[in-house]
Amino acid sequence: MRCKLRDLGFSIGTLPTGERNQVTDVPGVRVGHVTIREDMNERTVIRTGVTAVLPHGGNWFLEKVPAACFVLNGFGKTVGLVQVEELGLIESPIMLTNTFSVGAVWQGTLEYMLAMTPEIGDTTGSVNIVVGECNDSYLNTARALSVTKEHAKEAIAAARVEMEEGAIGAGTGMMCFGWKGGVGSSSRVVSRGYTVGALVVSNFGRREELRFVPYVPPSFDERDVPPGSIMMIVATDAPLDARQLKRLAKRAAVGLGRTGSCVHHGSGDIVIAFSNAYTIPHFSDSALQPFPPLVRDDAPLMNELFQAAIEATEEAIWNSLTMAETTAGRNGRVGEAIPYSLLRRMGE
Amino acid sequence: MRCKLRDLGFSIGTLPTGERNQVTDVPGVRVGHVTIREDMNERTVIRTGVTAVLPHGGNWFLEKVPAACFVLNGFGKTVGLVQVEELGLIESPIMLTNTFSVGAVWQGTLEYMLAMTPEIGDTTGSVNIVVGECNDSYLNTARALSVTKEHAKEAIAAARVEMEEGAIGAGTGMMCFGWKGGVGSSSRVVSRGYTVGALVVSNFGRREELRFVPYVPPSFDERDVPPGSIMMIVATDAPLDARQLKRLAKRAAVGLGRTGSCVHHGSGDIVIAFSNAYTIPHFSDSALQPFPPLVRDDAPLMNELFQAAIEATEEAIWNSLTMAETTAGRNGRVGEAIPYSLLRRMGE
Amino acid sequence: MRCKLRDLGFSIGTLPTGERNQVTDVPGVRVGHVTIREDMNERTVIRTGVTAVLPHGGNWFLEKVPAACFVLNGFGKTVGLVQVEELGLIESPIMLTNTFSVGAVWQGTLEYMLAMTPEIGDTTGSVNIVVGECNDSYLNTARALSVTKEHAKEAIAAARVEMEEGAIGAGTGMMCFGWKGGVGSSSRVVSRGYTVGALVVSNFGRREELRFVPYVPPSFDERDVPPGSIMMIVATDAPLDARQLKRLAKRAAVGLGRTGSCVHHGSGDIVIAFSNAYTIPHFSDSALQPFPPLVRDDAPLMNELFQAAIEATEEAIWNSLTMAETTAGRNGRVGEAIPYSLLRRMGE
Amino acid sequence: MRCKLRDLGFSIGTLPTGERNQVTDVPGVRVGHVTIREDMNERTVIRTGVTAVLPHGGNWFLEKVPAACFVLNGFGKTVGLVQVEELGLIESPIMLTNTFSVGAVWQGTLEYMLAMTPEIGDTTGSVNIVVGECNDSYLNTARALSVTKEHAKEAIAAARVEMEEGAIGAGTGMMCFGWKGGVGSSSRVVSRGYTVGALVVSNFGRREELRFVPYVPPSFDERDVPPGSIMMIVATDAPLDARQLKRLAKRAAVGLGRTGSCVHHGSGDIVIAFSNAYTIPHFSDSALQPFPPLVRDDAPLMNELFQAAIEATEEAIWNSLTMAETTAGRNGRVGEAIPYSLLRRMGE
Repeated sequence: MRCKLRDLGFSIGTLPTGERNQVTDVPGVRVGHVTIREDMNERTVIRTGVTAVLPHGGNWFLEKVPAACFVLNGFGKTVGLVQVEELGLIESPIMLTNTFSVGAVWQGTLEYMLAMTPEIGDTTGSVNIVVGECNDSYLNTARALSVTKEHAKEAIAAARVEMEEGAIGAGTGMMCFGWKGGVGSSSRVVSRGYTVGALVVSNFGRREELRFVPYVPPSFDERDVPPGSIMMIVATDAPLDARQLKRLAKRAAVGLGRTGSCVHHGSGDIVIAFSNAYTIPHFSDSALQPFPPLVRDDAPLMNELFQAAIEATEEAIWNSLTMAETTAGRNGRVGEAIPYSLLRRMGE
Repeated sequence: MRCKLRDLGFSIGTLPTGERNQVTDVPGVRVGHVTIREDMNERTVIRTGVTAVLPHGGNWFLEKVPAACFVLNGFGKTVGLVQVEELGLIESPIMLTNTFSVGAVWQGTLEYMLAMTPEIGDTTGSVNIVVGECNDSYLNTARALSVTKEHAKEAIAAARVEMEEGAIGAGTGMMCFGWKGGVGSSSRVVSRGYTVGALVVSNFGRREELRFVPYVPPSFDERDVPPGSIMMIVATDAPLDARQLKRLAKRAAVGLGRTGSCVHHGSGDIVIAFSNAYTIPHFSDSALQPFPPLVRDDAPLMNELFQAAIEATEEAIWNSLTMAETTAGRNGRVGEAIPYSLLRRMGE
Repeated sequence: MRCKLRDLGFSIGTLPTGERNQVTDVPGVRVGHVTIREDMNERTVIRTGVTAVLPHGGNWFLEKVPAACFVLNGFGKTVGLVQVEELGLIESPIMLTNTFSVGAVWQGTLEYMLAMTPEIGDTTGSVNIVVGECNDSYLNTARALSVTKEHAKEAIAAARVEMEEGAIGAGTGMMCFGWKGGVGSSSRVVSRGYTVGALVVSNFGRREELRFVPYVPPSFDERDVPPGSIMMIVATDAPLDARQLKRLAKRAAVGLGRTGSCVHHGSGDIVIAFSNAYTIPHFSDSALQPFPPLVRDDAPLMNELFQAAIEATEEAIWNSLTMAETTAGRNGRVGEAIPYSLLRRMGE
Repeated sequence: MRCKLRDLGFSIGTLPTGERNQVTDVPGVRVGHVTIREDMNERTVIRTGVTAVLPHGGNWFLEKVPAACFVLNGFGKTVGLVQVEELGLIESPIMLTNTFSVGAVWQGTLEYMLAMTPEIGDTTGSVNIVVGECNDSYLNTARALSVTKEHAKEAIAAARVEMEEGAIGAGTGMMCFGWKGGVGSSSRVVSRGYTVGALVVSNFGRREELRFVPYVPPSFDERDVPPGSIMMIVATDAPLDARQLKRLAKRAAVGLGRTGSCVHHGSGDIVIAFSNAYTIPHFSDSALQPFPPLVRDDAPLMNELFQAAIEATEEAIWNSLTMAETTAGRNGRVGEAIPYSLLRRMGE
């Protein structure tokens, strides 16, 4: 039975966590997983899935959320960032999956959105689907292309507040620091009661890089593990605009760095940040759009939000490790869960 | 019978064109189309397709080309640019289609690449697929999602040097300046015999914006036309690196502006530029990668390349108009070919 | 006696101009020039100056304006853009001068701001000075470094609504399309009475590039003219945020392209856009900052603003040509004013 | 007597350092300081200076080095990055000083370059000066504007291989993590004998942020310390191009994050990276520029370079703390040197 970092007596940083210590502590945010595990033969072993992060409980196209991204390392195939960058908005769930399933997940999400919103592509334009990915082909037979568009729809439909972490959903087949990685999440509460939540799919790094943990030589050749990536989703209910969310996203990258990642060449390290403090309606008769007051850049609150993004991201990565269970994959490979005994030295 | 701008006695700029006045004048570049026209009922009329631009005649994953992009307006769903930006390379065909078919075309291109290159996703990492799009839902029943992954494969397989232009491939259902748009291409030859070619899928603008052509009131309400987009592909055999190709890409945007486009909010105006003067091998035992001499930024040749990108892009847009045939679409709508008589005033 | 393009019977685009057809039509914007003309000897001929664009009539540090920039070509030395990009604000006048005087003008502007605002550098942090430049060393003996910090202060103090154009201020020694260039300005009024104004310092291009004007061979070797640059300032009183102002700035670049510029390698082509519809106070006790309603990106008004930025920029460049007087410079060189007779063919 | 982190028995990371553990371990790189300490009266206490980083021993304008920057947080006034970004080159020393002295240092460096290279501004264009800054106004009476252009020239002339660290040069008045900060440097050697060196001017953070050190309440109000900044210069003799150097620069930001920085709003955190493995000549008769073989992005060597940039930057920051001496400043303020006894817990 695996547990979160805090259940092991460790913690990251100084800010308090939200109730669940998950991204879903941000009111309205829900997360859904579809996990695909199938053993066809030794070479074809499916360990993959889809994770959907829903920005709020309404229609994401009709009520868009302010958003931004930061690409620390662009060796990745994330879809949808061009429009996020231009308009500072997200209008779909944020979908996560394996590298080879971007098309299928994009397709399923599109169909979900089209069914949800008949106007798209008929009387109004298009919808921008956001899909992030990591390459799980060390354990998963990625070439089997086993994720279908239906899996994407199921992941959206499965979204809930009580989310699971570890070797599940998009994290099913991921490896992190030479150990089994996957989905991890954490949250922080700052002044005025605002919450910052992080969700990661961790799939990067070598054993020697992980800080605060003694090096344990792997039973496999780490060079066989694809260089990996990490998708970092940062959510908040603090009222920020897209420019400010980009600042928040950059701090998530600092949280990644603190775990020990050297941001290897082949690791697509990408942050997507959004706020659901307010939404921008798709349809409006007005030429002007009102906004709520936004956090001042120079308010101490902003630095707290920055700190929260760093801490929640770092701890989410740790949770992805401590929650992930040992997972056997293709070609007899095994992704071992990190032994808790190794963590005894952290923070001393 | 439609023809190119030059066959009507007009031309853009002062540099000489290549042999075909097409992007395929760049040696090694080939273009393939799949056109999908189907009339199911009045509301379901399919006018769409796929266009594939192949950077060279080999395996694009094993021999990558230097590349860059420039986003003039990011209201678009182009896929693959994150990695192009990071690594300065393209390792797939550049696929073009309608907005709602990005997933299907991505999927088909992935499968094509996986079949072509067994190492991907097995012993080596992932492949970055580039797909650009415009929204053809004025004429095309885009919600029918009629493009399949097989169409993408067919478009790649259909690639050839003698390419067609107009209401074909990805351009089948596009509208430009309130007239029928589509695929257009042009090329220029500069010093040392280098060629710059442009291929566009034009789907933007209002009638009143088009320069050098008198305003003819449309028989339809232009507000019903989705705001549109333009994909601009610039190819060259001049030896440039990714940084320099981004400079070239920015000049293509100048060519767009000269036609009269006001780069409307809803128009995703995106340029992808590549050079096939040299390739970067995927596999190498060496830590170092040799490069050929590159064009000096301050050489007069560079300014010629810039001018060539501007002229070829502008003329490609004109060709997309003069080559496109009148096309009837969904809901009784008609995309009218621009009458050649209107062009009589150009350049006077 | 020189005049503006419209006084010659020509015009650009379709939107109406503001009262003065100048950037100062944007309420609160003022422009000041200092012109330095001195003949020491044949080799040392000073033809340069400083131009100050004031965003509003108050203290720019205490009341900052939303702002953005777009670098079409970064061969330039503009100062201050890093912070404009991060915070989306301008807190100083926008100063324009020659390439070699950036330091002096920065220094003078800093001293002006320090005198105006005792808190800076004492109880509150720093101030971000914005200085743009073009290289006037064809006519001006730039190496003489004749601009002093006092000139910067004088330019700010000289700012007024009734601004001058042509071979004046920062434009004194500039060359454009092989003719005498300099300062030009234009404005447009759109729905709801919002104004978009442009001010340029034009110093780019070869004769053959200028559109709508027949080529007249120059009496000098165009290769002796440094490759040049253009600074484009776009101001508006429409309520936009920094992200939207970047979109506006990109459209100014389209206006530049329409004049015929090929955006040569050596030409630093930089746009700075700001809105003074609202200001952000430097000091605040609140963690939250209220904003007025902003223009919706998808409102027709936004496309009007885009069109206005294109038209005003293009016409400002024309005005910089038609307003500039023939100017003799160093080494016996002469920057000839463009003969109005050449313009007879425009728009036919 | 202060010393470096390694002299205290601690170290960062696993890669070996260069001979001096300084940025000057990169062959050809030299560093010069000018330190200005003057006590006029209680309110006017000068603690500031200039630091010059010379990319190589030749004429930097005539032999440019490939370079890039990464702005982690753009609350800063660094000058020259627009052109670095466009051309991927640095053609001047990299100058560092206090926020209010950017103009003076720019001016002095320009004059140095003009004297060194008579062609600039006469028969060839302009020169791009790079100046970075941090705000030392907690200890230094920055409003006195005591840095002159002559100081910049002196710093360049003073450059040598045996560089000093601590409260010296641009670091004289800086504060870091609530302790006295300043100039720090470190280096790493990787495969093939390539070196990566980092030099920082540290001026950021609060005491509670510094990792691995117990919190010691300051005797002053940390809110009086301006939010600060850090300039990070990364140098290498590995053959990289500008795109790759931007990747390297991003890793330096990871090193910063590992020290505990939360990248506060007011902290301009900026990295400039260059390689002097090869140079690009300013003058050339050829249209083509040869390049040496460059490091392959996917070579293990590249990941070593990334790791080296992280480690060297982190250790340089530590060195800026351990080398800095207690410094009394304006208004009776004191910047205390970090007590070595606090470091006993690091790495346990």
